[in-house]
Amino acid sequence: MSRYWSELVAGLEPYVPGEQPQDTSFIKLNTNESPYPPSPAVAEIVHGFAADELRRYPDPESRELVAALADYHGVDRDEVFVGNGSDEVLAHAFLGLLQKPAPIRFPDISYSFYPVYCALYRIAFEAIALDSRLRVDVDAFCEPCGGVVLPNPNAPTGIALGLDALRRLLAAQRDVAVIVDEAYVDFGADSAVGLIGEFDNLLVVRTFSKSRSLAGLRLGYALGQAQLIEGLQRVKNSFNSYPIDRIACAAGVAAIGDEAYFRACRERIVASRERLAGELARLGFEVCPSHANFLFARHASAAAGEIYTGLRSAGILVRHFDQPRIDDYLRISIGSDADCDALIAVLEKILS
Amino acid sequence: MSRYWSELVAGLEPYVPGEQPQDTSFIKLNTNESPYPPSPAVAEIVHGFAADELRRYPDPESRELVAALADYHGVDRDEVFVGNGSDEVLAHAFLGLLQKPAPIRFPDISYSFYPVYCALYRIAFEAIALDSRLRVDVDAFCEPCGGVVLPNPNAPTGIALGLDALRRLLAAQRDVAVIVDEAYVDFGADSAVGLIGEFDNLLVVRTFSKSRSLAGLRLGYALGQAQLIEGLQRVKNSFNSYPIDRIACAAGVAAIGDEAYFRACRERIVASRERLAGELARLGFEVCPSHANFLFARHASAAAGEIYTGLRSAGILVRHFDQPRIDDYLRISIGSDADCDALIAVLEKILS
Repeated sequence: MSRYWSELVAGLEPYVPGEQPQDTSFIKLNTNESPYPPSPAVAEIVHGFAADELRRYPDPESRELVAALADYHGVDRDEVFVGNGSDEVLAHAFLGLLQKPAPIRFPDISYSFYPVYCALYRIAFEAIALDSRLRVDVDAFCEPCGGVVLPNPNAPTGIALGLDALRRLLAAQRDVAVIVDEAYVDFGADSAVGLIGEFDNLLVVRTFSKSRSLAGLRLGYALGQAQLIEGLQRVKNSFNSYPIDRIACAAGVAAIGDEAYFRACRERIVASRERLAGELARLGFEVCPSHANFLFARHASAAAGEIYTGLRSAGILVRHFDQPRIDDYLRISIGSDADCDALIAVLEKILS
Repeated sequence: MSRYWSELVAGLEPYVPGEQPQDTSFIKLNTNESPYPPSPAVAEIVHGFAADELRRYPDPESRELVAALADYHGVDRDEVFVGNGSDEVLAHAFLGLLQKPAPIRFPDISYSFYPVYCALYRIAFEAIALDSRLRVDVDAFCEPCGGVVLPNPNAPTGIALGLDALRRLLAAQRDVAVIVDEAYVDFGADSAVGLIGEFDNLLVVRTFSKSRSLAGLRLGYALGQAQLIEGLQRVKNSFNSYPIDRIACAAGVAAIGDEAYFRACRERIVASRERLAGELARLGFEVCPSHANFLFARHASAAAGEIYTGLRSAGILVRHFDQPRIDDYLRISIGSDADCDALIAVLEKILS
């Protein structure tokens, strides 16, 4: 605590990201990164980048990247907003669209950055309980409120909602913004992007960090009707005119352009997920039905904290959230098949 | 205006950066970029970057870059904060250190992003008038207030304060944070970094965009005692855990490591500035004494708007601020000697 801090600062409880050890010998299944490198087209852009261009500011509008994303998703260019990772996009969306008199709503078990944004921007919220099977109860999100944030699939459960449920929610919340956080949508859930034309209250948030293997480059974006996007632009242009650097912009365009590679990685990860889910069930885990690049699972008898520690000692990092209702679960990112095999082998020892 | 916007958004008047034309044939003297490429060590890092690493999140603390900056400036590692450009660093500092009951103070003619941050974070401010020769009146900044932001050298004037004046200000404002924005300090002004040990209310903000030729990579930082830095960390970790991407972090370390190149570029720019100042004076301009990589000048008879337009037609971009007190001035970034020669040649035609 310092007397120079704003009153706000003392009350913040910052987000704690998953561990990022410097020691690269860990099998790292704790932050939902991709086990596969980014598209070779990204490497080509980086390695051929004209370093002299770095002396110039980037395009403040990142128009090349915006155009690539608009074409890819079949929306207009003024329906795309890009940011320095989807966390930045979400932050601007909370301030720009969710700072409302009425409390906003998001699930009680969800991305733990949401309540942090609320503290940062003094936004009141109600955390709506997942049901006993850790599913989102859509009806509870249809009640009057200041806005809704829903990850689909949800994290850390991996459970997805269908488009019918989202459509019902969007129709019920015509007066407030509904943010659907699709960080993990590429691994099998239905995207709400196709509903943008129908619902002017819908903002879909995406990231390059998972299915595009670019967590290290910091790129995220949002899609929505032009007026919502303009709200985000106004916040962004009051915060940092140039959030996307020149290399990231060009690399993002390259990643979006390599559809074949994207599909191949995604299919491998989905196949590994289904195989790992089966193995975990065989070992006595109850596994949430996942549409993401991770599994959320609890063991019938062994304590999650002890499994976490045992895995860590064996050089495998997974995530254990020490919080009510989910402290008996582990969240396990889908690695390569070799990573999954190593995980299973260690679990067999721990649980034997 | 959209009903989905927060009340705040409708009231924002976003910052307008200098023009960034796609047309690269312009001689671009409007946004204070470097005429020289970044250090060859930066190109080496980029071209040799292991693209596979991009699938992993970066170190959320950017420890390698923080360590390089701490060593370079002779401060502790917990006295360094890094951000996605100094605009982001300033934004976090405004929210974390300047959101106070009493209005903060900054010069009326200064970096025009400051009042934008105030609107974003609902911070009251008083714009303190520069004197008739466009100099900062330090005494006016010693009056009780909620905090102070002072660019040194000031922009767009280029005029610098000495350390005695800054020391007087810091001593008078012991109870509030004083931010010295040193974006342009490397071109000849005295840095306040040496005062950090003495004043726990001092935050010095720096950028890689000017003297390091890395505007396109988005890197900025702040130096101050650990408690001030912790205040910024708490805001950052409530906004975006990973603001610095892996390539930018490594390239920043490389840039800081190449002191010889840095000094050589700086000396060339200072020499070009002095030569250009002489030429402008010869052509009838009154030129503010600049310690920055730009000149702020007005002509004895020709209107600034007309000179701006004439230069633009000839393919040379400079900046004209169409606002009270300075609308008869032009701000001209220091280009290469060839850029300066081209500018002088066109000015000679326009003014003849």
